[in-house]
Amino acid sequence: MNVAVVGLGALGIAFATFLKKAGNAVYGITKPEYLKNFPENRLCVKGIWGEHSVQLDGIYADPSRIKEDIDLIILTVKSYDTETALRQIKPIVDKNTLIMVAQNGYGNYEKAVELYGSGKVVLARVIFGSKVVKPNCAEITVSADDVRIGDPSGKIDREKLLKIVNTINSSGIPASYSPDVYSVLWDKILYNCALNPLGALLQATYGQLASREETREIMENVIKEIFQVAQANRIPLRWKSAEEYINHFYKNLIPPTAKHYPSMYYDLKAGKKTEIDALNGAVVRLGEKAGIPTPTNQTITNLIKFKER
Amino acid sequence: MNVAVVGLGALGIAFATFLKKAGNAVYGITKPEYLKNFPENRLCVKGIWGEHSVQLDGIYADPSRIKEDIDLIILTVKSYDTETALRQIKPIVDKNTLIMVAQNGYGNYEKAVELYGSGKVVLARVIFGSKVVKPNCAEITVSADDVRIGDPSGKIDREKLLKIVNTINSSGIPASYSPDVYSVLWDKILYNCALNPLGALLQATYGQLASREETREIMENVIKEIFQVAQANRIPLRWKSAEEYINHFYKNLIPPTAKHYPSMYYDLKAGKKTEIDALNGAVVRLGEKAGIPTPTNQTITNLIKFKER
Repeated sequence: MNVAVVGLGALGIAFATFLKKAGNAVYGITKPEYLKNFPENRLCVKGIWGEHSVQLDGIYADPSRIKEDIDLIILTVKSYDTETALRQIKPIVDKNTLIMVAQNGYGNYEKAVELYGSGKVVLARVIFGSKVVKPNCAEITVSADDVRIGDPSGKIDREKLLKIVNTINSSGIPASYSPDVYSVLWDKILYNCALNPLGALLQATYGQLASREETREIMENVIKEIFQVAQANRIPLRWKSAEEYINHFYKNLIPPTAKHYPSMYYDLKAGKKTEIDALNGAVVRLGEKAGIPTPTNQTITNLIKFKER
Repeated sequence: MNVAVVGLGALGIAFATFLKKAGNAVYGITKPEYLKNFPENRLCVKGIWGEHSVQLDGIYADPSRIKEDIDLIILTVKSYDTETALRQIKPIVDKNTLIMVAQNGYGNYEKAVELYGSGKVVLARVIFGSKVVKPNCAEITVSADDVRIGDPSGKIDREKLLKIVNTINSSGIPASYSPDVYSVLWDKILYNCALNPLGALLQATYGQLASREETREIMENVIKEIFQVAQANRIPLRWKSAEEYINHFYKNLIPPTAKHYPSMYYDLKAGKKTEIDALNGAVVRLGEKAGIPTPTNQTITNLIKFKER
């Protein structure tokens, strides 16, 4: 396959390196100021899936410099850069190109569909952990589950989807086809909305947040509001009720990650922007659209936004 | 008058010093571990109302050591110590004694009435600023308004109330009689609930909180919830609507205090307990009592409580 990976942070480096190593033609798209981070188009990966070093077929700031037809564009930029990145890739999206949204949070898939139509957009829920250890090198630290890949619209030919899944899976990144990927992504949104901003605001680990009555109450209110908002917006969740999810959350999700700080904690600490607008901020906007009040998510979102500046 | 001041922090030192200087018999009640802070029962005050140094008639940890009949007990302990202090003063409350509650927040007056009956309890709204500069010395930094003194129950003889007002006023602490002191105190509760916890959480001044859209939204939600809770609990506020108060808040209250950090900010910084339970925490409890949801106040309260530990 001919693949373009948009965004060469930890996630983009991982996808690009494994796909190149497996013999695909792989191009990277990054911001002009980051081009210097990738001498000779070299990337590398280390960690739980081994050490690999590759040379991409090109790394550009301007996608129109790619002359080959691209089969798959993998979007890995931060959520707040999604719209810019989507507009920027226009020159390389032709009638056979699929765009795979591999980002956190709500609004990335929706924006891609708005701009390119649902028949062009594949959704991936990525839940392995990677971090940049050198500007052109990522370390894969943990993998909670396969990359789940699917088409929420049902419009994309299933063979094409399976080919993408197979290409990624056989490159060394565990991946599987998931017809309910949209709900699976919302599972991650629930988890991130409950934990990330609170961990960042209070500088606390997931385990600390789950062990104290005060933060449990806030997280449960965040989750309950999301269930109301999802129902009003006909977003299919995989849980019958907030209570059912909350039970799963404390029993199964927190224990293995109890010692983790959320990425938002590191973002704020580094004075960087966070993905709050694709998480609790998106919940607030979905609530407004449906006339559902989301005061807890709103308060949390506002606190993070104040801290961001 | 024979006066006992319970709590010898910044506020207690101020009351005790001025009242003693004016010729009253004044006793101080403090915790056993603080007795050593007051050698020879000496207190002093400096700041905007001049420098004064006095020797009290006694400073004790055990009120029953006061042998004189006490006309007035002034309660100045932190809200979380109110109940303990009220129980402790029992030996010096006789049939002529009045208890003046001079503290921040909701629940102090109510607790005093619960324990001693409304005919025994005077309410004071204190809004001058003082801070401890030496263990036995306070500095008066600012005065926004007279100490307003009144009896929400209407049961106390007006002459007795006016005598208290006059005693305090003539001692050098500007004070006036206020029939609507309960509503006046709620004005301060509104102000403190909106600003204190946010300033403490975000380490921001009142001016910063008022200048940013995110924190304005949170503060306005805090205020709106308080108006709903007050109405449901038949608490008389001095403003027709939340909007009317919010307008006053930004226009008149914030500008002169724009550079201030709330006391709660200093409390958290020093690892001390805050008065959150007498502010937003009290709003949450009043809301629960009346079946009014207060998610914004609840979230804020929980965040502060997490930070306290």
